[in-house]
Amino acid sequence: MSLGEFDLINQHFNRPVLNQSAGVSVGIGDDCAILDIPDGYQLAVSTDTLVSGIHFFEDVDPYRLGYKSLAVNLSDLAAMGATPKWISLAITLPDTSAINNQTWLSEFSRGFFDLANKHQVSLVGGDTTKGPLSITVSVKGLIPRGQALQRNNAKANDLICVSSHLGDGALGLALKLEQLEIQNQQYFVDALELTEPRILLGESLRGLASSCIDISDGLTQDLQHILKASHCSAQLNIESLPLSKEMLAAVDLNEISEDMAIQYALTGGDDYELLFTISDAHLVQLNKQLACQEQVTPAISIIGQLHPQQAEPITLLQHNQAVNFFINGWDHFK
Amino acid sequence: MSLGEFDLINQHFNRPVLNQSAGVSVGIGDDCAILDIPDGYQLAVSTDTLVSGIHFFEDVDPYRLGYKSLAVNLSDLAAMGATPKWISLAITLPDTSAINNQTWLSEFSRGFFDLANKHQVSLVGGDTTKGPLSITVSVKGLIPRGQALQRNNAKANDLICVSSHLGDGALGLALKLEQLEIQNQQYFVDALELTEPRILLGESLRGLASSCIDISDGLTQDLQHILKASHCSAQLNIESLPLSKEMLAAVDLNEISEDMAIQYALTGGDDYELLFTISDAHLVQLNKQLACQEQVTPAISIIGQLHPQQAEPITLLQHNQAVNFFINGWDHFK
Repeated sequence: MSLGEFDLINQHFNRPVLNQSAGVSVGIGDDCAILDIPDGYQLAVSTDTLVSGIHFFEDVDPYRLGYKSLAVNLSDLAAMGATPKWISLAITLPDTSAINNQTWLSEFSRGFFDLANKHQVSLVGGDTTKGPLSITVSVKGLIPRGQALQRNNAKANDLICVSSHLGDGALGLALKLEQLEIQNQQYFVDALELTEPRILLGESLRGLASSCIDISDGLTQDLQHILKASHCSAQLNIESLPLSKEMLAAVDLNEISEDMAIQYALTGGDDYELLFTISDAHLVQLNKQLACQEQVTPAISIIGQLHPQQAEPITLLQHNQAVNFFINGWDHFK
Repeated sequence: MSLGEFDLINQHFNRPVLNQSAGVSVGIGDDCAILDIPDGYQLAVSTDTLVSGIHFFEDVDPYRLGYKSLAVNLSDLAAMGATPKWISLAITLPDTSAINNQTWLSEFSRGFFDLANKHQVSLVGGDTTKGPLSITVSVKGLIPRGQALQRNNAKANDLICVSSHLGDGALGLALKLEQLEIQNQQYFVDALELTEPRILLGESLRGLASSCIDISDGLTQDLQHILKASHCSAQLNIESLPLSKEMLAAVDLNEISEDMAIQYALTGGDDYELLFTISDAHLVQLNKQLACQEQVTPAISIIGQLHPQQAEPITLLQHNQAVNFFINGWDHFK
């Protein structure tokens, strides 16, 4: 069954704005949304597109697609230390029975709004068009003036830290691409598809971290953006890379080699963990602050340290010996 | 030649921010753009997607595609009375020699930035992805608090007005679809492809118009959004519809019938003119104000009047006689 554009928007995407303080003066249904920015705050904006067959499989579960379309965008706000407030969603839907039907759309919007509601963000507009399946989400958040976590303020001697675990999403992707004899398969696929944007951690890093980025293209590639912008180099300790107990179990059972697990953690991408740099003193403050949070925040691992800029941007050490791994990440256009 | 994503962004889309007062604290090259909203203003946001084969022809001139991708979005801001400030551009490019090459991209970005520079708007972020050609632009503008031109404040007795001419873009589209014996072909194709967002007019309507919308799907369809939101009905005078001298010439030469010209004006869409409602007194004020503008603003035509809500939302009159035309516009999903 094919619906008209306006019916479609109304049925699946026109939800009441979450609360009175949402700052939405005009929402869905006019030429523009009109939004209130409180005094003393700046607006943080990020846009990401997910294309069928490139960023997700055509037969992906629509609930998970809706969820992840928003999650990767919220992750960008987290990396900036912003508090998410509003979303625009541009969705292009093919005219096929598999996609342009009520079940698919209701599952997509359920996944989308489950995550939106969790973070108290409101959908305020967008566009629905016909064509090859593709989703562009633009998120808007607020940040106290001057406190955005940029990439260009990292300093030599700062510690390099990441949240939670690395490499699980990459193994999840490998499992979607080929049959592998691995236990806990669902855990890795969930890590890929139900990624958790680290909003609270990002907010906690304001005023403490010297730089921050979220890991979408792989640890070493994303780290290089910080190094380039901040004119630094990095030493990473391989044995400090945080691997999940599920990943370690796969290594213990010889389902994958240790080197493969490390490679996933270094360059796999799709982690959506926060990678940040911070001074010793500020890290102590951060840990104190996180310990007092009501909500559980992800564990923080120190994985290396910054040094003055040199020819080789990243040096990998394993038990204090220089080692080689492939360190280039994912580039959609190469 | 295929470029990496970061090279591609840098080469074609990373322009210096236009001026010091552009309000861009962080632009392209970080996880988010960080933008300054001055006190006393609200943020207006709109998003539109253009899909190859649906919204434009695959062999479209890339300069014109870049221009129009931005124009249709700026038009939404104009319809709200907002002043455009910032743009995010999400572009999905196929891996074909025809599109993913330097000439195509440099022409696309030239068209895009020609219009952006004209209106002093800065590109602050976006995404480049691989896949079927598609462009999603999200524009952000500023509006003095509480002055947005909405759809739901129109009142019975207000006059119904439109800017410039109607129907030219629709005839331009007809000319792209089939061979027609028409003079001034380029004029009509230009009306379709090089549409002028009515920013200055939109700003001038603040505090004067009771409602406003831009005509993208056709006069009568877009008028119905106002009528529905404002609980009114409308009487339109067919002889008052503003037809261009080129359209009138085509009628005079029997290249198209008068009824066809009227039909284009009523439902053709792709006009991107402003349709607004306004009291007599405010229209006098508006005309005075427009006459004092340094920049040339489009002519305003009174095409009808609002009435209290009734069963038939729109009545068409020609020389005071009720007449029938098809009044349903374009819906991408029907």
